[in-house]
Amino acid sequence: MLTYIYVIAITAEAMSGALAAGRRRMDMFGVGLIAFVTALGGGTVRDMVLGNYPITWTQHPPYIYLTILAGLFTMAVARYMHHLHKIFLVLDAMGLIAFTVIGCNVALRLDYSLPVVIMAGMMTGIFGGILRDILCNRVPVVLQHELYASVSLVVAILYLSMLALDINHDLNLLISFGLGLAMRLAAIRWSWSLPVFHYAPGRWKD
Amino acid sequence: MLTYIYVIAITAEAMSGALAAGRRRMDMFGVGLIAFVTALGGGTVRDMVLGNYPITWTQHPPYIYLTILAGLFTMAVARYMHHLHKIFLVLDAMGLIAFTVIGCNVALRLDYSLPVVIMAGMMTGIFGGILRDILCNRVPVVLQHELYASVSLVVAILYLSMLALDINHDLNLLISFGLGLAMRLAAIRWSWSLPVFHYAPGRWKD
Amino acid sequence: MLTYIYVIAITAEAMSGALAAGRRRMDMFGVGLIAFVTALGGGTVRDMVLGNYPITWTQHPPYIYLTILAGLFTMAVARYMHHLHKIFLVLDAMGLIAFTVIGCNVALRLDYSLPVVIMAGMMTGIFGGILRDILCNRVPVVLQHELYASVSLVVAILYLSMLALDINHDLNLLISFGLGLAMRLAAIRWSWSLPVFHYAPGRWKD
Repeated sequence: MLTYIYVIAITAEAMSGALAAGRRRMDMFGVGLIAFVTALGGGTVRDMVLGNYPITWTQHPPYIYLTILAGLFTMAVARYMHHLHKIFLVLDAMGLIAFTVIGCNVALRLDYSLPVVIMAGMMTGIFGGILRDILCNRVPVVLQHELYASVSLVVAILYLSMLALDINHDLNLLISFGLGLAMRLAAIRWSWSLPVFHYAPGRWKD
Repeated sequence: MLTYIYVIAITAEAMSGALAAGRRRMDMFGVGLIAFVTALGGGTVRDMVLGNYPITWTQHPPYIYLTILAGLFTMAVARYMHHLHKIFLVLDAMGLIAFTVIGCNVALRLDYSLPVVIMAGMMTGIFGGILRDILCNRVPVVLQHELYASVSLVVAILYLSMLALDINHDLNLLISFGLGLAMRLAAIRWSWSLPVFHYAPGRWKD
Repeated sequence: MLTYIYVIAITAEAMSGALAAGRRRMDMFGVGLIAFVTALGGGTVRDMVLGNYPITWTQHPPYIYLTILAGLFTMAVARYMHHLHKIFLVLDAMGLIAFTVIGCNVALRLDYSLPVVIMAGMMTGIFGGILRDILCNRVPVVLQHELYASVSLVVAILYLSMLALDINHDLNLLISFGLGLAMRLAAIRWSWSLPVFHYAPGRWKD
């Protein structure tokens, strides 16, 4: 089941990457590359940091094709996509959760310690978007507002706690996705966000 | 022969990196680093993604010196370089093709599957320029216009097809360079480019 | 003793990262991530380039906590930090030197050749700041002005020369830190800098 969600997740991420590329008026190649990097870049960074070779997507060519094609397909249907805005947000949230759970499992399998396992989950969840924004020459949105990375952190801790408690894995996934999705959508609905740090030297007189 | 072309290629790439650094008014150190990264960064990303350790340039110090010195040399002769603009474009195109062929061979040697071999060739060809543009805080030009990455893709497919057909390797290289160079120069001459994706929400009323 | 300096160094680097994040109005998560990346990113890039797995910080969770907490702590005390500006510059300089020495030793242990050892020292010293600036969407300051990377280069050469001459290691560290610190502070005090390369095609008529 996680595989199905993963496939949906990388497709949604690839499409979000393609839209970002379109905002920068990239050509077909740029769109395909940004789609690929947004969808599979988080896992790539995780694998490179953990030394997990060969990197996952190099062993699964269909994922490569899927993300690039999803990007190119987005070029064709972009004008209708704002109708799908809400579905898109749900798919993106499911992707974030799926990536987090998968990333934790990769680090667990390699016997990393708990904090690194949590970071591996978060890296998988958010670094695709960070690489997308670096390539599009903008400050990564995930660092600026909205509960996005925080959802990944909460899901990682929740999932790993239930794993430690030997709770049935399907139930664990159900709860992790349910609560993660609820938290993410509530954060969007009510604009929840973390405190922002605004540092402007000269802003304080003293 | 590929080695000679490779040396010319990294020199040309280093010089293009130095010019980009100069546009950002970098100091000597910045110029040397951008020259190095532009010339050898594509191969570095490829080696890190494929897990090909030790990374190539760490075993060939002369390449390190060559790229840094080419960058510093560019500082001295920059004011005369626009006279050499056309030679430069040819060298850059030869570099793109040489990098592509070399990248494919590295992945082949490591037994990666065909799509990964092609991507390894393209990564080697274009990621030096992408890293250069990220460090210079601009949207990577290779993602925006002109047939550049596409030349790399066509060369990779052409070269690998002839390899599969057991065509004499020197002849293979000759054809790959000939057609690749022709395609790249024609793309520059007649401003060939891929369709561009311009996504601006609010642009379509419906 | 190098460990103590290292702990001070990553704390100072994390705080400098947090301030950069504050200039971009990032949220708590962004501040923590930039702090972590600024402090430990140089070593991460070095380990990934040298193939030195597992990457250092993955084996030392306290370093992860320390850098993130230092970043969050900076949010609270930022308004008082300009009073500490000078102490900060000294700690940052000590961090640069400590990172350089540690980076050289990692590469030495892996039997890399001399130029790669020097580059490993410099990478450790400056890539944290480069990643910080990329994530904050600005041209890396280290590439633009002031003797910063050059201090790292001089320290690396000095330290390795004394190592080759079998000079007592504590004395070696004392001299490396003394001269490195003096050079960096003199560079700040008298605005020493390397020649800048300003390339603007069309600037020269000929």
